[in-house]
Amino acid sequence: MNQTELLHVNFPHLRALKPFDTAHSATPWLDNLETKHQRKLCDSLEQAIERSGLRDGMTISFHHAFREGDRVINTVVALLAKMGFKNLTLASSSLMTCNDALIEHIERGVITRIYTSGMRGKLADAISHGLMDEPVQIHSHGGRVKLLQDGELNIDVAFLGVPCSDEFGNANGTQGKSCCGSLGYAMVDAQFARNVVLLTEELVPFPNMPASLVQDQVDYIVKVESVGDPAKISVGAARVTSNPRELMIARYAADVIEHSGYFRDGFSMQTGSGAAATACTRFMEEKMERSGVKASFALGGITGSLVDLHEKGLIGKLLDTQCFDGQAAASLARNPNHVEISTNVYANPGSKAACCDQLDVVILSALEIDVDFNVNVITGSDGVMRGASGGHCDVAAAANLTIVVAPLLRSRIPTVVKRVTTRLTPGESIDVLVTDHGIAVNPARPEIRQRLLAAGLKVVDIDDLYQRAISLTGNPKPIEFTDKIVGVIRYRDGSVIDVVRQVKEYE
Amino acid sequence: MNQTELLHVNFPHLRALKPFDTAHSATPWLDNLETKHQRKLCDSLEQAIERSGLRDGMTISFHHAFREGDRVINTVVALLAKMGFKNLTLASSSLMTCNDALIEHIERGVITRIYTSGMRGKLADAISHGLMDEPVQIHSHGGRVKLLQDGELNIDVAFLGVPCSDEFGNANGTQGKSCCGSLGYAMVDAQFARNVVLLTEELVPFPNMPASLVQDQVDYIVKVESVGDPAKISVGAARVTSNPRELMIARYAADVIEHSGYFRDGFSMQTGSGAAATACTRFMEEKMERSGVKASFALGGITGSLVDLHEKGLIGKLLDTQCFDGQAAASLARNPNHVEISTNVYANPGSKAACCDQLDVVILSALEIDVDFNVNVITGSDGVMRGASGGHCDVAAAANLTIVVAPLLRSRIPTVVKRVTTRLTPGESIDVLVTDHGIAVNPARPEIRQRLLAAGLKVVDIDDLYQRAISLTGNPKPIEFTDKIVGVIRYRDGSVIDVVRQVKEYE
Repeated sequence: MNQTELLHVNFPHLRALKPFDTAHSATPWLDNLETKHQRKLCDSLEQAIERSGLRDGMTISFHHAFREGDRVINTVVALLAKMGFKNLTLASSSLMTCNDALIEHIERGVITRIYTSGMRGKLADAISHGLMDEPVQIHSHGGRVKLLQDGELNIDVAFLGVPCSDEFGNANGTQGKSCCGSLGYAMVDAQFARNVVLLTEELVPFPNMPASLVQDQVDYIVKVESVGDPAKISVGAARVTSNPRELMIARYAADVIEHSGYFRDGFSMQTGSGAAATACTRFMEEKMERSGVKASFALGGITGSLVDLHEKGLIGKLLDTQCFDGQAAASLARNPNHVEISTNVYANPGSKAACCDQLDVVILSALEIDVDFNVNVITGSDGVMRGASGGHCDVAAAANLTIVVAPLLRSRIPTVVKRVTTRLTPGESIDVLVTDHGIAVNPARPEIRQRLLAAGLKVVDIDDLYQRAISLTGNPKPIEFTDKIVGVIRYRDGSVIDVVRQVKEYE
Repeated sequence: MNQTELLHVNFPHLRALKPFDTAHSATPWLDNLETKHQRKLCDSLEQAIERSGLRDGMTISFHHAFREGDRVINTVVALLAKMGFKNLTLASSSLMTCNDALIEHIERGVITRIYTSGMRGKLADAISHGLMDEPVQIHSHGGRVKLLQDGELNIDVAFLGVPCSDEFGNANGTQGKSCCGSLGYAMVDAQFARNVVLLTEELVPFPNMPASLVQDQVDYIVKVESVGDPAKISVGAARVTSNPRELMIARYAADVIEHSGYFRDGFSMQTGSGAAATACTRFMEEKMERSGVKASFALGGITGSLVDLHEKGLIGKLLDTQCFDGQAAASLARNPNHVEISTNVYANPGSKAACCDQLDVVILSALEIDVDFNVNVITGSDGVMRGASGGHCDVAAAANLTIVVAPLLRSRIPTVVKRVTTRLTPGESIDVLVTDHGIAVNPARPEIRQRLLAAGLKVVDIDDLYQRAISLTGNPKPIEFTDKIVGVIRYRDGSVIDVVRQVKEYE
């Protein structure tokens, strides 16, 4: 009787224990130098897809750190189409104007379901007009992780573009030719996906550490010409503004922060991706310098303006889920207190703790806000999808002071409305609305209204803003929808907070 | 019909989707500032245990980064005993001489099963003499993660001592009063345990980032007086030697590396925890300086000597699962290329990649090595357990050149034996044995033997070393064992490579 048999006889509950065979029985790749070093490397993307075990009906995922500069999503889906895949669920952390090319793959049944934070351009237009049989699931950044955690969303293969990786899959977004900076979205896919394929522009020597995506999360690696154009990260929603009205709103928002009661040493802040929101950072600098108030941290999408404040000692730490420009990406590589965080750590309501829960002040944008402070960031006034949920409802729910900035009118169309076309963030989460025509405070926060009035700011009633808007534009004609649901708006906890229906007339 | 009902009617497969309730339904702690900030904080360790949901029969875990200075394991188990817990499985990453106090809790049935990398002192002695009904499961560092991954080992509550944490549980080992350095063991517990309780010496402001243990892994936090004495990390197995024989062996080992064929620019190395192994680093420095050869990385337990080489530019990166001294802990805080890694990333054979697979050279210790190169690092020549599996079999299996260093005799007892008392690492994984009486090369590696001979090193046959040993000491009397199995030696892949039986006569 050998040792293991003796063990089994004496301890029957240990019967599953097997005897030792050889040192490499469980790790056959250790048998020779080639497999030791090359077992994850693929000659082509096609080979990586084959090795990943992807089959029809499965779920694929992507990150959108390159935003409008992304080159991975279209490339991979086009190849999947060519390889004959059908009925795939596309779970990209978001989709952009650059993803128009997906339309034909949806038409041909390659992609039949979509989970995303948002959509823009022709793709969003086509889906809003009924391109898909199945409604698109629109989630927040935090809510996406909750869907993964809860098992509604199961990623079979994640295709993650990175500027550099070593042969084991240690990768980051701060070194190499095309630096996107933080890989905060991709970190979640790497954590949850059954199979992870890295597309990398450069293969660098092991160990490429510290790593954002770590070798124990990566299955296959393929070298590609390009994963994205970082110059296009700050195009679109993440642009820097010189529009005088946006700058005026940004200045008002900074005034609101200053007098809100939350502007004190050690406070924390986030500025969303809209132009006025990010511009507000510049106006904060002067107030912080003047008053000696320093922020403990800034959270979320990080911009060059926030990096400036950090490097001037005005913001202690930058907690970064996504770099909104090259300056931020360079800072992440350089500044030890500029810290990359995943969207799980950032904002998942099902996480053991989310950074947004520590936020004092956040400034967010809106396509529409209604007289009950409900916010729409996904559909335009024509009912067509053209935005993204992002971290909007996550941070709004968690921050101590949530400020929405928006012009009263956009191209003669009211932003302040009676009832939002689509509800993404509930009014209960919004404390203050800052417009170019005055500042409205949620009646649930009378103490903030008092403070702003005492500071001499132009506080108005949100109903008055609404009346002013329609007095300027007339009452807008209601949008006509069909009965077909084309989008489901998921609140951060996974619940359905609204649906988007197909607009009449396919354009 | 509301929006969600409409959705369910049209898309029956989405029937699980619930309608939105309120912003805080899923996150009730966001309702007020106190719960927002304090929900993880416990007034006492007892309260943390109660809130963790620990029940009789469950599994608790600890890390051993403080080694002989640990104050968490004994404290927690004593409290659990006082609170009346029974039949717990203790899954510490390792146990030390300082854990003698566990004996009484085993005697009283508080602890009835143990998983550990090793044991020393009175505890090991008592277990070797039959203290427990159930054999102790001895695993390697990499193998422990495999057991967690495979589900044999399920940690219900991990109790993890750290020098500092914020109120969300972002913790590291490099700041605060008692710095242990790398939390490479604890990172795995934080990842796998259902509940994680942090014991912290200091509560620092949020965000304590970058963090080694991250807020999304931590459930409860309790402030305690002391978690460990870092001065005792380098006591015992991790000590620095001035013993002339150990230094001589270390010098021989450095000669072996130099002439092995693996000493070339960009090579990588690990030195285990034994005194001669760690001392070898000092002799490598001179060779590297002289030849211009630089190492790409050093792996595993990191010492001050390795930090010296790193800071002199001779080693590119330090991949650190455990700091073996204060100098290493200070370096981890200071040097961006001194990188903390988990034991999963370090050596788990079930991981998607383990750093040890990239190793060129490793120097390891042995209590015994036999003529087939099998190594024993757990039992003494008296059959009593007094060591630890550590990363021994992990790294030996993976490295391109595995060197064991050992004196031929210890206190007139042979180290080179006919058959090891207990087999931890199979002979197939060992390439070279360096003793004070000569160097033996595994016959499976004739090319290395040739190179060492060509360099004029004193290469001998391992049988000759064995003969020399017994000619000096006489043939040792066989140890007498009972039939009772007191320890099961698990190879890194989970298989049983040996068992330890109870030694006769309880001392």
